[in-house]
Amino acid sequence: MIRRVLSADVATHVGERITIAGWLHRRRELKSVTFLIIRDRAGLAQVVLPAGYFVPAGEETVLQVEGLVVASDQAPAGAELSDPVVTVLSGPAEPPPFNLYRPAIGASLPTILDHAPATLRHPRLQAGFEVAAASAAGFRSALDRLGFTEVFTPKIVESATEGGANVFRLDYFGRPAYLAQSPQFYKQAMVGVFERVFEVGPVFRAEPHDTGRHLAQYVSLDAELGFITDHFDVMPVCRDAVAGMADSVRDRAGAAMQTLGATLPQVPAQIPDIHFAEAMSLISAATGEDVTGEDDLAPAHERWLGEWAVREHGSDLLFVTGYPLAIKPFYTHPDPVRPRYSRGFDLLFRGTEIVTGGQRLHRHDEYLAALTARGMDPAPFASYLQVFRHGMPPHGGFAIGLERWTALLTGAPNVRQVTLFPRDLHRLSP
Amino acid sequence: MIRRVLSADVATHVGERITIAGWLHRRRELKSVTFLIIRDRAGLAQVVLPAGYFVPAGEETVLQVEGLVVASDQAPAGAELSDPVVTVLSGPAEPPPFNLYRPAIGASLPTILDHAPATLRHPRLQAGFEVAAASAAGFRSALDRLGFTEVFTPKIVESATEGGANVFRLDYFGRPAYLAQSPQFYKQAMVGVFERVFEVGPVFRAEPHDTGRHLAQYVSLDAELGFITDHFDVMPVCRDAVAGMADSVRDRAGAAMQTLGATLPQVPAQIPDIHFAEAMSLISAATGEDVTGEDDLAPAHERWLGEWAVREHGSDLLFVTGYPLAIKPFYTHPDPVRPRYSRGFDLLFRGTEIVTGGQRLHRHDEYLAALTARGMDPAPFASYLQVFRHGMPPHGGFAIGLERWTALLTGAPNVRQVTLFPRDLHRLSP
Repeated sequence: MIRRVLSADVATHVGERITIAGWLHRRRELKSVTFLIIRDRAGLAQVVLPAGYFVPAGEETVLQVEGLVVASDQAPAGAELSDPVVTVLSGPAEPPPFNLYRPAIGASLPTILDHAPATLRHPRLQAGFEVAAASAAGFRSALDRLGFTEVFTPKIVESATEGGANVFRLDYFGRPAYLAQSPQFYKQAMVGVFERVFEVGPVFRAEPHDTGRHLAQYVSLDAELGFITDHFDVMPVCRDAVAGMADSVRDRAGAAMQTLGATLPQVPAQIPDIHFAEAMSLISAATGEDVTGEDDLAPAHERWLGEWAVREHGSDLLFVTGYPLAIKPFYTHPDPVRPRYSRGFDLLFRGTEIVTGGQRLHRHDEYLAALTARGMDPAPFASYLQVFRHGMPPHGGFAIGLERWTALLTGAPNVRQVTLFPRDLHRLSP
Repeated sequence: MIRRVLSADVATHVGERITIAGWLHRRRELKSVTFLIIRDRAGLAQVVLPAGYFVPAGEETVLQVEGLVVASDQAPAGAELSDPVVTVLSGPAEPPPFNLYRPAIGASLPTILDHAPATLRHPRLQAGFEVAAASAAGFRSALDRLGFTEVFTPKIVESATEGGANVFRLDYFGRPAYLAQSPQFYKQAMVGVFERVFEVGPVFRAEPHDTGRHLAQYVSLDAELGFITDHFDVMPVCRDAVAGMADSVRDRAGAAMQTLGATLPQVPAQIPDIHFAEAMSLISAATGEDVTGEDDLAPAHERWLGEWAVREHGSDLLFVTGYPLAIKPFYTHPDPVRPRYSRGFDLLFRGTEIVTGGQRLHRHDEYLAALTARGMDPAPFASYLQVFRHGMPPHGGFAIGLERWTALLTGAPNVRQVTLFPRDLHRLSP
């Protein structure tokens, strides 16, 4: 291993000769002296080149610098390397399409994405991925504490999971197959084995929508659990998962959040909830527009509810329960008392839906009836539905889109800004 | 939530009326009494039905049982429920294709896999997945401790990652695309951002081989790190990852390992290593067959080396270093002293390869030269290779196949036994 001191630790070596290594973040040529700012995974370190010492390297070249640590108030970490010996570790570097050392990202999103391997090095973009990584780790540990088992399910399936369009078709050894739109049926089947399961993995949607919220591949944080009474037993687990994500971001990506000027939500011990019908009445009364006959929340209504939750409950988070069955997938459990409504819920975060969940049907005949009632052919679902012939408990679960959560948390206007190498209608590379 | 006591805790409630819930694992009808054995995620609990109390439920039906806890030496956990009130929670259950309560799995692998949602409930099959889940968790925490950042990379790519065959072709919004065979180039690019990255995710191989070792989708545990001197800096990280996996299996899946009669390897502080050329000389001397001209290890040679490592070093694990460049992918770093050989390594576990890794090329011109030398067209790799124009440090990494590791660890003769819903040449469902 290249024996080196990370930039954050340079100041603890004043008076010693040490080696640092990293990318040439910036070269500052003053009249009598040249500074090299070296970036490594811990931050920045400054090197003073004596007059006449020429380093033939442009920004983003990888350098190893051996030098004497001298205390300096002007240097990034309170110390700098002087009397250096510089070695080039990489090939010659082409400059990225904008200066990585400026606080603002001086390029459009398409430019950023076209040059992702270089542009992702900008500290503001890095920070978004650190938040995403911390969130995934927090999701896993929260569910681990609750006795959930991690599963890895197939991403190539024989028919479209949700029975809808938006599915990628594949040549599977000469047969047609599809990319999984969600691990829905597999996580349900695994409730039959482990009772409580989670998965963190990619899902695929052939999304024809070219918006800031839609991706063709995203990371789904999925959970499913058995022996519930109804969806009100799933919501506290969802709350704990989101609280675990927020805690992990605080603990592991605090500096990243600071770089982005982003603030974490307080996750209440119990997230407030409101039934869909009551929400629609409130919105109708407040806006004067009668939406009580609608089956879904428009984005403006979600925003209104987000503000209402802050006003009434002091909460960035709000569960909306009982969405009309008509807009929910066929596996959704109806509300037995008011069959127009479901035992489904969404979680709104700052006025945008980030989680969808609910209780599922758990009896084979209920599935057949639900499919038939929707005019869907049960045949393509035969292999998915076989588990319900073998004894399944009442169960439910939820899914969180990692990129959407991260974008909302960090204030990114477009999920692509917090997605490594996004895939969409127009983009398949890099 | 259904208020219930898990089976493992029943014995702490002697003298109380409690509720348990789970699957009817077995019904034992004796002359004067009937026992119901209930299985939940914590184990088994016994219920005594009084004469004349009929429960209309076959095995695998999900039941809730309220009853009085009575100490009993014969019962699974030292106590049983008497005077029960039984409620059926599931629909009527069809019996699985073999009795889940017998210690041995009384069915062929195809039968097991065809009926996976039911058969995976057998404790021996469950145990394999618990070992896999614990291994993945151990991999992540080992790398987390070493300062690695988790990444999520695209699984749909514009050209075949390794440039080879065995790639699934996809219709991507009317354009051709491919499923990623590995996160290789993306994890390398992310070394340019985070220096040290890992990913746990699916990879896809259109494997024409119908063997007990090959799958069309498997879980790859990938790691990559920068600022190395050579592959001997990657091997200790790989050692720590494998040690973390073994520790996690011991801590989290100890009972599962016991169910399977499997034993964990001792992972030495430094795993012994041998150069490929020396290995071939030893094998030639020992077997009398001259293999020194060969470019790869045959399975029999791997087994021989596995036994040699136990004999010479008391180790279940052995690194074989310096595989001939001819059999390594084009991004492999050559040995500058002996250019026939590479800076690649494999890790053998009990005589089978479970890890492949090594140092990679890190300069753009080296990549162009390597591709040209192999008669490969650099054009399809343009977007992957752009990162090497922007300054990359010397780096390397490795990948572990989760299913293969789990199969070797648990003694499963076929990786399909430790894969939830495997995908292969012939199998696309359930």
